[in-house]
Amino acid sequence: MIENPFYGPEFHGEYEVASVGRLDLEEGGTIPDCRLAFTTWGELSPEKDNAVLITTWYSGTHQIWRDAYVGEGHALDPSRWFIVAIDQIGSGLSVSPHNADGDNASIAMSNFPRVRIGDDVVAQERLLRERFGIERLQLVVGGSMGAQQTYEWAVRFPEKVLRAAPIAGTAQNTPHDQIFADVLMAAITSDPGFADGEYKSNADVVAGLTRHADIWGVMGFSTEAWKLEFWRAMEFDSKEAFLDGFLRPYFTAMDPNDLLCMAWKWQHGDVARHTGGDLAAALGRITAKTYVMPIDEDMFFPPRDCRAEQELVPGAELRVIEEVLGHLGLFGVAPSYMPQIDRHLGELLATRV
Amino acid sequence: MIENPFYGPEFHGEYEVASVGRLDLEEGGTIPDCRLAFTTWGELSPEKDNAVLITTWYSGTHQIWRDAYVGEGHALDPSRWFIVAIDQIGSGLSVSPHNADGDNASIAMSNFPRVRIGDDVVAQERLLRERFGIERLQLVVGGSMGAQQTYEWAVRFPEKVLRAAPIAGTAQNTPHDQIFADVLMAAITSDPGFADGEYKSNADVVAGLTRHADIWGVMGFSTEAWKLEFWRAMEFDSKEAFLDGFLRPYFTAMDPNDLLCMAWKWQHGDVARHTGGDLAAALGRITAKTYVMPIDEDMFFPPRDCRAEQELVPGAELRVIEEVLGHLGLFGVAPSYMPQIDRHLGELLATRV
Repeated sequence: MIENPFYGPEFHGEYEVASVGRLDLEEGGTIPDCRLAFTTWGELSPEKDNAVLITTWYSGTHQIWRDAYVGEGHALDPSRWFIVAIDQIGSGLSVSPHNADGDNASIAMSNFPRVRIGDDVVAQERLLRERFGIERLQLVVGGSMGAQQTYEWAVRFPEKVLRAAPIAGTAQNTPHDQIFADVLMAAITSDPGFADGEYKSNADVVAGLTRHADIWGVMGFSTEAWKLEFWRAMEFDSKEAFLDGFLRPYFTAMDPNDLLCMAWKWQHGDVARHTGGDLAAALGRITAKTYVMPIDEDMFFPPRDCRAEQELVPGAELRVIEEVLGHLGLFGVAPSYMPQIDRHLGELLATRV
Repeated sequence: MIENPFYGPEFHGEYEVASVGRLDLEEGGTIPDCRLAFTTWGELSPEKDNAVLITTWYSGTHQIWRDAYVGEGHALDPSRWFIVAIDQIGSGLSVSPHNADGDNASIAMSNFPRVRIGDDVVAQERLLRERFGIERLQLVVGGSMGAQQTYEWAVRFPEKVLRAAPIAGTAQNTPHDQIFADVLMAAITSDPGFADGEYKSNADVVAGLTRHADIWGVMGFSTEAWKLEFWRAMEFDSKEAFLDGFLRPYFTAMDPNDLLCMAWKWQHGDVARHTGGDLAAALGRITAKTYVMPIDEDMFFPPRDCRAEQELVPGAELRVIEEVLGHLGLFGVAPSYMPQIDRHLGELLATRV
C-alpha cells in the first residue's frame, strides 16, 4: 500500500466505498475483498425503476461526471433518475494495486492480478443488486473504457440493461489501440524508477509518467485542436505551458501500477470472448436501445470503428459528437460538447423500451 | 565516430559522397566539412535543363526512391530526366553525428550542432551547382521531411525551382507534430543506455529505439490499416510479428543521435522564418508549379493541414493520395500507391512552366 493523496475526497469529492466480497477473475486471479468506490445522485424510486449507471474511463473517476455531466439541466438529472457512478477496479479509488491492504495485501503493487472489463461489470452488478436491490438499469453510459463497460453490460446482462450509450469507445478493442496501449505502458515500465512495479512512491516514476502524459498529448487531442490552440480557453499561454501545467500534473499525480492495471484492461476489452470470438454474435445479443456516440475527431476511437460495431447492434443508432478536441473532449470543457451529449442522452432516455 | 554497418552500400546500394565544404548553420554552429551522400539516375542534358531533385525523409534515404519511385515506367524516368537524390544531413549517409570524423571530429555524437531544413537546402544547392552546374530544377520532390525540404527550396530559391511536389508533409510544422517529435525523441533519450548521446553502439540504446519504433506503429499507419491487417501482404502472420520482424529492426539498426538530429530538424521546419513568421508571405513567394500531395489516411500530416498551405501557394493544386496505410504508405508497398504518385508527378512534369 502506498499513500497517495490524489486518491481521496480532496480531488474526487464525496464518495462511498463498499465491498462486494471475493471476486474471482476471468484471468484466474482473485481479489479477496473487492471494494468499489461509487457515488450516487437522486433517489431510487420505490419500484427501483429509475436507476442509471455511469462507468468510468482510464484515469477518470466519478468526479468528472459530477463536474460536467450530472445535474439539473442535464439529461442525467438527479431529480428524475437515481444515478450511480462506479469507479473501475484500478481507478485508485476502488480496489487497485496501490491501495491493496488488509485482506488484499497479497495482491498489492506488482502482485495485482489481471483484471478484465468483464470483472468490473460482474462486481458492479453485484453492488447494484446487493446494496440497492437494483435489477434493471434504465441506462448504462460511459466514455472510452466506460464505453467498453457499457457494451459489456449490454452483452452480458441484456435483460438488465434497457438503454446503452457507449461514448467514444468500442466493444472490441482495435489492433491499433492495442499497440497504443502497449506504448503507454512501456513509457511507464521503462522508467528505472518503476522498479518492476515495486517503487516506493509515484514520484519515483515521474519521468515515465511524464512521457506517458506526452503520448496522451499526441493521441488524446486532434491535430486540429492543437492548431486551434485549444489550451488558450483553459488560460494557458503556450502548448508547453498546457503540458507542464495540466496534462503532466494530471498523470504524474497518479499511481503507475493503477494506470497499468487499467491500460491492460482497456487493451484486452472484447465482448466477443462471450461468443467464441464472434463479434457479430456478441453484439447481436444486445436488447438495450443503444446510441453509439463516437467523437468525430477522435484519433483512436474514430467514428469508422464505432460505426462498424453500431451496425452489429440490433436497432442501434449512430450519434456522432462533433468535438474538435478529439478523445479528451470527454472532459466536457468545450461549450459545444455537453449540449450534444445532453441532447442524445435525453432522446435516448425518452425512448420507450 | 561509431561503426554502424547499416549505413553502407549493403543496405543503401550504390551512392557517392561529396563535400560542399564548410557549412555555417542557421542555429549558429558549423559543419567544417559538409559531406553529402547522393545518387543519380539518367544523363544531364548539355543544356542542364532536365534535372530533378529528390529529397529524403526521416530515417529514409535515396534507396527507397531507387526501390519504389525511380525507373522506367515511372514518372521519374531516367531516360527522360537527370535525377539526383541527396540524403539529408543526419541521415547517417551524409554527415551525421555517428559518422563525424576527420575535420568533423569535433562535432561527433552529442556535439553535433543543430541543423535546420534550410541548412540542408543550402548544402544541396551548392552540391548541384558546384558538381553538376545545375542552376534550375525541373522538379523538386520529396515526402514527409522531404516535403519540408521541397517547400524550403521553392521559397528560398524560387527562380531555381520550376515545379514542386511536397508529398505527405508541410511547409510549417504543426504544433501536433512538434509534440509528436518530442515524444519520439524522449523515447530514445530516456534510455539509460543513451548516456547523454555518448553511447558506444546503437545496440546500447535498443530499448529506447524499440519504444521509438512502436510509437511509429501508432502514428505511422492508420487505424484502419491495422484493422485490415496490412502486414499480411508483407507476409507476417500477426501484428506482433510485423513489429518484431519489420518496424523494430528497421529502427534499431539506426543511430540514435542521427535520428535525433533529423527529429529536431523536422520539429523546427518552418518556411515562415524567411518572412518574420508570416506563412502566407513565405508561401506566396513560390513561383514553382506546385502539387500538394497529402495522403488521405495520414495521422499526422492530414490533408486538412496540407490543404491550408496549398491554398497559400499561388496556382498550387491539391492532389490527395488515397492510401489506407497512412503516412508510411510512402514506402510504396501498396499496389495502388505508385500509380497515383506517377500520375500526379507525370502530369506535373508535363505542365508548361
